[in-house]
Amino acid sequence: MVGSVVVNDSVVLLQVIGKVKPPAEEIEPAEIPTRSAPSGSENGGKKEIVLGRNLHSSSFRITEPEEDEELTGDCEAYMASVLAKYRRNLVERTKHHLGYPYNLDFEYGALSQLQPFSINNLGDPFIESNYGVHSRQFEVGVLDWFARLWELEKNEYWGYITNCGTEGNLHGILIGREVFPDGVLYASRESHYSVFKAARMYRMDCVKVKTLVSGEIDCSDFQAKLIENQEKPAIVNVNIGTTVKGAVDDLDLVIKLLEESGFENRFYIHCDGALFGLMMPFVKRAPKVTFRKPIGSVSVSGHKFIGCPVPCGVQITRKTHINAVSRDVEYLASRDATIMGSRNGHAPLFLWYALNRKGYRGFQKEVQRCLLSAHFLKGRLRAAGIGAMLNELSSTVVFERPQDDEFVRKWQLACEGNIAHVVVMPNVTVEKLCVFVDELVRVRSVWSSGGEISPPCIAAEVGRENCDCLLHLHGQ
Amino acid sequence: MVGSVVVNDSVVLLQVIGKVKPPAEEIEPAEIPTRSAPSGSENGGKKEIVLGRNLHSSSFRITEPEEDEELTGDCEAYMASVLAKYRRNLVERTKHHLGYPYNLDFEYGALSQLQPFSINNLGDPFIESNYGVHSRQFEVGVLDWFARLWELEKNEYWGYITNCGTEGNLHGILIGREVFPDGVLYASRESHYSVFKAARMYRMDCVKVKTLVSGEIDCSDFQAKLIENQEKPAIVNVNIGTTVKGAVDDLDLVIKLLEESGFENRFYIHCDGALFGLMMPFVKRAPKVTFRKPIGSVSVSGHKFIGCPVPCGVQITRKTHINAVSRDVEYLASRDATIMGSRNGHAPLFLWYALNRKGYRGFQKEVQRCLLSAHFLKGRLRAAGIGAMLNELSSTVVFERPQDDEFVRKWQLACEGNIAHVVVMPNVTVEKLCVFVDELVRVRSVWSSGGEISPPCIAAEVGRENCDCLLHLHGQ
Repeated sequence: MVGSVVVNDSVVLLQVIGKVKPPAEEIEPAEIPTRSAPSGSENGGKKEIVLGRNLHSSSFRITEPEEDEELTGDCEAYMASVLAKYRRNLVERTKHHLGYPYNLDFEYGALSQLQPFSINNLGDPFIESNYGVHSRQFEVGVLDWFARLWELEKNEYWGYITNCGTEGNLHGILIGREVFPDGVLYASRESHYSVFKAARMYRMDCVKVKTLVSGEIDCSDFQAKLIENQEKPAIVNVNIGTTVKGAVDDLDLVIKLLEESGFENRFYIHCDGALFGLMMPFVKRAPKVTFRKPIGSVSVSGHKFIGCPVPCGVQITRKTHINAVSRDVEYLASRDATIMGSRNGHAPLFLWYALNRKGYRGFQKEVQRCLLSAHFLKGRLRAAGIGAMLNELSSTVVFERPQDDEFVRKWQLACEGNIAHVVVMPNVTVEKLCVFVDELVRVRSVWSSGGEISPPCIAAEVGRENCDCLLHLHGQ
Repeated sequence: MVGSVVVNDSVVLLQVIGKVKPPAEEIEPAEIPTRSAPSGSENGGKKEIVLGRNLHSSSFRITEPEEDEELTGDCEAYMASVLAKYRRNLVERTKHHLGYPYNLDFEYGALSQLQPFSINNLGDPFIESNYGVHSRQFEVGVLDWFARLWELEKNEYWGYITNCGTEGNLHGILIGREVFPDGVLYASRESHYSVFKAARMYRMDCVKVKTLVSGEIDCSDFQAKLIENQEKPAIVNVNIGTTVKGAVDDLDLVIKLLEESGFENRFYIHCDGALFGLMMPFVKRAPKVTFRKPIGSVSVSGHKFIGCPVPCGVQITRKTHINAVSRDVEYLASRDATIMGSRNGHAPLFLWYALNRKGYRGFQKEVQRCLLSAHFLKGRLRAAGIGAMLNELSSTVVFERPQDDEFVRKWQLACEGNIAHVVVMPNVTVEKLCVFVDELVRVRSVWSSGGEISPPCIAAEVGRENCDCLLHLHGQ
């Protein structure tokens, strides 16, 4: 029950919130992050999302310190014990993670000396604000590196370090809308959900374009939809690696179709390169993302391929576009061209450190190793009779969705419909993949109750040639 | 010059980006964060914001490590030297900071053991996602604490930990718009710039309401504007502490006017409590922010009064509203009701730790100390003949803008028009304020070239009674 919190009356206040620490059972659940209520229920092999519930049972309550806390140290001891257990759990969860494109292998010990500072790059990276505890000099170094990667001159680009891939997409699409206020947003239906969120937030007309089995945008459908909406400019989200299948949209063909369909000088392209924006430059035969082509913005995540303890990303656009969204904020002695106001100043330090240490050569090696390991995984899965697909330019292996929620949770697999995926990141070794496949094969035989395994058909998701159901296995 | 970055051709790549480390002069500017180009120029005592410039001269370039880096360790040494200098600078800048409402006094050493983990609370705090390296159990503990503070039952609220105050405002206003799609946004002209950014992003009609000299919303103007737009529902941003003057809008009067003007059941109120949302409950006579009143959402920043190395915030709303903005995202096995996708999982840990250690009693003591120190500062300024204002419920002291950019930069004062302010946070001691005032008085006599000081008139900004210009000093 929520009591009456009386302003400035600490007696009543403390009665209401409860002075007594919760009993040990309450603060020490068997395993810290195991929630007592599952997040979804099994429903025909598909996880159902239950909306509107509040799960408080396994959270760590905040308790009011005792008056004599400084003497007893109870609160400190309680927190230390919770944190120690939580840390052990993080170690374990980090070890068994395969489903999200996060590189969990990083080493930023040299930066721990900076943790005690409230570093905030509020406002524009290129205009000094009055707040002095910032890391703009590192941020601009990182931005310069990315602008060079995507071939935009220092004096021709603008960008900033974002909080995540979503912020990059929100920013890129917002620029597109400000440049073409009546533009229609086109995005393949396998685009990241933040793209459709942007359309809704910004009240933009949005056209969903079909995809090929690979997950790439279906360019014939794209062209048809362009022609249907020819009177309005086009704002196009191009996926440089889709979320689920790691598919890369054909940027050159998208541009060609726009120009051929009468959209010349009436289109804006945002490239969502959350994961692949940093892998593609190092993949042979990959189509090139570059500002020498008529694109408007590119975004990439920092916590994905690079690896970073906090989510972050990089957004680069043309300086000529940025005035479309910016406005002066005298309070900051800066301009307001970013989505967020206060911005995490530690993120640029992580990126600056990682880029300096690894360099282009380091990333190249890691990309190559990831692609090889992904091929290895796909081979192992197919050899075990499990349908699986791997796009040529990708390290995302898509396969038959495991029917065991416990297994999915243990390996933290991202699932959609009948399929799941593993994203091979630099921290995913071949040894780990072997353990994973062996365990998958073992639990799979349990699902079939020891009888013959009848693989489900996933041809619609991964193509006939990658499906191992009885029908497609025999070449039909 | 940006060269041709050839895909997968490391030789050309390295030529382009330059293998050679920059000379020592370039990487070691005299003082690290001093930019060679100033951010604005003096223009009639008012700083001019220069748009569209890219400042790269003092940034720290990222250089490609040498092939034999592991042997020589040059790169590590270079980075260590940059970071050590940067750290010294942060210490100095942290010491001389007065202008932004950031509490720079915190101690999170116990959490440094968690820095090596990529903690990400992607998606909804209350619905477990498949990604296991999260801190939802801490996040929900923090949210419960705030819901209790603002009197909303556990099963009636929804909320999340945001990246900053701006994200809270963007979220609150978005809920308002989704609840009332044709609603008009009302906000006083002294509202935070993110409120007007939201209106533009969301394509909402926005009415700017006048303010009183104190910075509070002018309720008679508000009422007049409500009547002008009576046919459409009202979405109102109520400031619980404005950015510049720390003014608190009269929530009760705002509600009364809405109900009297025919808006009953046709309004949504978002309370922007970035700084004061956490101070108000501990201020005597302060109007109460509570969900027992018909408000829709409240946001507060975590890096302001609480103090935190990364910007963050808390957003709390009614669960009944949240379905208006949420949609299912199967990929996450979660729903998409937040603005950002990936969310910093370290921020909840900082907040959880600080709230546990300080508790209501701790905050109460700190609030009282800040208010006392702010009164002390205002008194010292007035005694020195400097016009200054302090709102009753606030620790933000507004005063005559110093005419010396160097002084403003040193103390990191936030300025607007003819005024500047100091926000007294828990890390701002009376001793520091004395040093500040003494220095201000000293440099002020220099501006007047040793002659008699003629204080500028700032009656329009702070009221006649707080102005020390020759006209108002003598009671006119």
